[in-house]
Amino acid sequence: MNSSIKDQIEQFKQRNQNRGRLLVSCPDQPGIVSAISQFLFSFDANIIESSQYSTNPEGGTFFIRIEFECPFLKTKESEMVQQFYEIATNFSMDWRLTPVYKVKKAAIFVSKELHCLMELLWEWQSGDLMTDIALVISNHEESRDVVEGLNIPFYYIPANKEIRKQVEEKQLQLLNEYDIDVIVLARYMQILTPKFVEANSKKIINIHHSFLPAFIGARPYERAHERGVKIIGATAHFVTNDLDEGPIIEQDIARVDHRSDVDTLKKIGRSIERSVLARAVKWHIEDRIIVHQNKTIVF
Amino acid sequence: MNSSIKDQIEQFKQRNQNRGRLLVSCPDQPGIVSAISQFLFSFDANIIESSQYSTNPEGGTFFIRIEFECPFLKTKESEMVQQFYEIATNFSMDWRLTPVYKVKKAAIFVSKELHCLMELLWEWQSGDLMTDIALVISNHEESRDVVEGLNIPFYYIPANKEIRKQVEEKQLQLLNEYDIDVIVLARYMQILTPKFVEANSKKIINIHHSFLPAFIGARPYERAHERGVKIIGATAHFVTNDLDEGPIIEQDIARVDHRSDVDTLKKIGRSIERSVLARAVKWHIEDRIIVHQNKTIVF
Amino acid sequence: MNSSIKDQIEQFKQRNQNRGRLLVSCPDQPGIVSAISQFLFSFDANIIESSQYSTNPEGGTFFIRIEFECPFLKTKESEMVQQFYEIATNFSMDWRLTPVYKVKKAAIFVSKELHCLMELLWEWQSGDLMTDIALVISNHEESRDVVEGLNIPFYYIPANKEIRKQVEEKQLQLLNEYDIDVIVLARYMQILTPKFVEANSKKIINIHHSFLPAFIGARPYERAHERGVKIIGATAHFVTNDLDEGPIIEQDIARVDHRSDVDTLKKIGRSIERSVLARAVKWHIEDRIIVHQNKTIVF
Amino acid sequence: MNSSIKDQIEQFKQRNQNRGRLLVSCPDQPGIVSAISQFLFSFDANIIESSQYSTNPEGGTFFIRIEFECPFLKTKESEMVQQFYEIATNFSMDWRLTPVYKVKKAAIFVSKELHCLMELLWEWQSGDLMTDIALVISNHEESRDVVEGLNIPFYYIPANKEIRKQVEEKQLQLLNEYDIDVIVLARYMQILTPKFVEANSKKIINIHHSFLPAFIGARPYERAHERGVKIIGATAHFVTNDLDEGPIIEQDIARVDHRSDVDTLKKIGRSIERSVLARAVKWHIEDRIIVHQNKTIVF
Repeated sequence: MNSSIKDQIEQFKQRNQNRGRLLVSCPDQPGIVSAISQFLFSFDANIIESSQYSTNPEGGTFFIRIEFECPFLKTKESEMVQQFYEIATNFSMDWRLTPVYKVKKAAIFVSKELHCLMELLWEWQSGDLMTDIALVISNHEESRDVVEGLNIPFYYIPANKEIRKQVEEKQLQLLNEYDIDVIVLARYMQILTPKFVEANSKKIINIHHSFLPAFIGARPYERAHERGVKIIGATAHFVTNDLDEGPIIEQDIARVDHRSDVDTLKKIGRSIERSVLARAVKWHIEDRIIVHQNKTIVF
Repeated sequence: MNSSIKDQIEQFKQRNQNRGRLLVSCPDQPGIVSAISQFLFSFDANIIESSQYSTNPEGGTFFIRIEFECPFLKTKESEMVQQFYEIATNFSMDWRLTPVYKVKKAAIFVSKELHCLMELLWEWQSGDLMTDIALVISNHEESRDVVEGLNIPFYYIPANKEIRKQVEEKQLQLLNEYDIDVIVLARYMQILTPKFVEANSKKIINIHHSFLPAFIGARPYERAHERGVKIIGATAHFVTNDLDEGPIIEQDIARVDHRSDVDTLKKIGRSIERSVLARAVKWHIEDRIIVHQNKTIVF
Repeated sequence: MNSSIKDQIEQFKQRNQNRGRLLVSCPDQPGIVSAISQFLFSFDANIIESSQYSTNPEGGTFFIRIEFECPFLKTKESEMVQQFYEIATNFSMDWRLTPVYKVKKAAIFVSKELHCLMELLWEWQSGDLMTDIALVISNHEESRDVVEGLNIPFYYIPANKEIRKQVEEKQLQLLNEYDIDVIVLARYMQILTPKFVEANSKKIINIHHSFLPAFIGARPYERAHERGVKIIGATAHFVTNDLDEGPIIEQDIARVDHRSDVDTLKKIGRSIERSVLARAVKWHIEDRIIVHQNKTIVF
Repeated sequence: MNSSIKDQIEQFKQRNQNRGRLLVSCPDQPGIVSAISQFLFSFDANIIESSQYSTNPEGGTFFIRIEFECPFLKTKESEMVQQFYEIATNFSMDWRLTPVYKVKKAAIFVSKELHCLMELLWEWQSGDLMTDIALVISNHEESRDVVEGLNIPFYYIPANKEIRKQVEEKQLQLLNEYDIDVIVLARYMQILTPKFVEANSKKIINIHHSFLPAFIGARPYERAHERGVKIIGATAHFVTNDLDEGPIIEQDIARVDHRSDVDTLKKIGRSIERSVLARAVKWHIEDRIIVHQNKTIVF
């Protein structure tokens, strides 16, 4: 990592040493907000930002994300977690409490097309994507120079259908070694096995180059051109074992017209893919996403 | 028709008595524009607006739309058409020459949901949709008052699967009687038979309440909600015998999020449907659309 | 009012008889959410939706909007208000508690251009704008038919600079008589006096036909055309005594290009004005807007 | 220049050796298109793309941009130009005929903020911006590494108000030396003198970080925040001697809300600035822009 980026991350940690995030989902009932906010108040925490949502006030599921500032967070952290267990049990909560200073570790997977990788690196360098890009894994050599130029470890692991198992073993070992929190498929053109996906449930974000559920699978721009659509799009989603069917995080679109040939669609599409993936990764890094069934709540 | 709308249409005809439009498609080769523009010049016509497109300069199809102002158009019209036949033959052209003062006649088909009809009527009343809305046909009574209130003939023709044949016979008779140029399905929730569609090829515009090709068929908002999309859309297209597979004319979208339940999607969607259909109809009325294979060129 | 709309409103009231909204702003400090949520819990109220914002966690202003479902709200209402005074005093709160079943009363002011009025009436008829449109006041007769056709009282009050004082006296009397909560200037082309504005502080919503602060004042489309902008817009804002300088509620835009003459800009603009004003009015009706200094927080 | 980019440019030149563009503006009258298309046909040129526009068919100004494919263009070029003089004289045309293989030379001026420069370099590397970036001039050292890393000459010329004259002399000498066709101010935070501007009339493209004409001048994001706008924007325009008042080429916007502080506005704004400037430069490079009075026609 470049020293200037290291400095940025250090400053960010320093600035956010008392900042925490609490994510909760549970069956809806009166008293949840009251219990959580009393809990936080009892630790002198000030709620900075709070968003909540219910699928249905009567008998539905309740979701909340709270960002708070808590003096001496590092000292109190383990006690907070311990005390919250009781509330969580009362309300049958799924929850996590994440201190912001623990910057998340990301692995980026990429093939030959570099635009999504480049956007992530650029956002990262400019301080807009506050994560630790721990390594880049590719089945091609195209991105080695730019990645190593930023002092990020680059791993070239050739891949194809036949050697999928061995490839994923190497990848899993690296993910383990680097203690990775999030895996970004930045136009990584290989299918992952169920084993890999399950080992990294809700941790893998993919960018699909169409407006899902339109044009699931291969060659979406070619098929969009053939269908004569007037708008194209891109979709960032969590990876599940159903191809392009995982929970959608973000989508965006751009207008095209009859003059747009397939190359033009790809060119326009690259720009959408870049920004859609970057937003999805940023929201994940900032603990803004809760997966519920096959959908996302993005706070 | 209200007298104020009649006046508007009369003024429009007067203002455009010398305005013509020429639409041409043919195999691409050098000399087409030269031949057409010389032809127009020989009639003292001034080209006001011109748009062209080639699928491929080498061996592709060439399309052009020219709007021109030609003194004494009414007198020259038949001679122009006659003379153009020669050029058309030389270049193997599909073509049409339409004088703007011949205002197109439209029939609107609607069921219970009136938002698309209302938008068209509103655009029409405010002079933005320069067509003669000759009649409205519905399988429900909901729109009678508003339609008759504007002095537009309203025909209530109950419809269902069983009586489709008889229903369409009545409809075709009315379309014939009123000499209709364009049929707008403004959320008309009945399937048309191949016979009806073929009798009105490239003349029927439908609004589908999804971003095609996503959610073809019934209940698109319900399915969009289930899939957890972050953007919904609507699509105006010419009707062919393949359900929701006809040439797309226009599409638009709106952002939604996890808080949007099905009713909210429908509410937001209505606003998209309204404007997408209105744009598509307007473009058709203005002779801006050429259908090529299963796509549209919109000039 | 039409009977079908009356029915809709009655059903809405019935459906929301236990629904309340609490809007609070106060100096930020720990414990606010805890106090409010405990208060609500003590009345068995379930928080359905909650949004909050701080200008600055340290020494800034805190804002919250809570929508809650409280069994027997009508019975408990006055006690809730009474008890909340204590919390409000402790935290120096500005606040209001509004039961949803008390549907707000709106007056619409309009001149000759009817598109914004028509949009509001349309949203209202389709049940998307849940308000009681108590009367329409106009300095022209153009809208009388459509307004009276919906059984809404219509008042024709001719207006100009010279008689402004008398005009506003009549208007204020009507607003008082009908007990109006919100005044919508739906392209009402008269300037209001400071007296009128002060008497209705934070209650008057205007639509300005430009993307403020560009093109403040008269003839914005003409000036946009002259400047050669590539995007035009509209702005809904609360009216203050500084022309077009009041707190902005909502803005939207549309692309234009060199071919768009002033009439085309107006045509495109009308569509933006319609939706921007309708959104702003809806948010106000739903108690989603807090005015802070010269800005709005829209929850 | 990197060898891969060199290769791309060579391939582009090869592919476009017979491709030409003709841009014309003149008083409108019948016969212009006919004369031009006959002229092209007489050289066996095939019109690939053509766009035209009239400010007013009666007595207005006519504009046309034609892209054509002409066998042996290099051999015929000078004869074409010579013969076109006659037509141009007959119709009082302003015109230029540009062969596409003569790739335009660009100079980029930048200060400390690099996002716009980075976007241009990225588009350039990926082959989407087909220009020869001949040099980068900066009053800061921040961009040296990335520029020189791509083998583009970098000139560090410190600048301030006091030494403006000397600075511009150096700059003008470099522009002359490198035979520059277009100057891109990619967030170059220095005012240019009238002398410099006149010497490069219609050749300097600036990106202003607001939605002009809102927030002309300094600190637009700060002022947008203060005004409480709900949408921010950026504007690419040709530089004239009136600050931020030159012909607008392109604008775009993004939604913001009450939660967006000044830093967030800047962050969001950077993304708009990047794409708006890149589009404007690309259109200029592709001879798509005609300046007419203080506006642009973008074909």
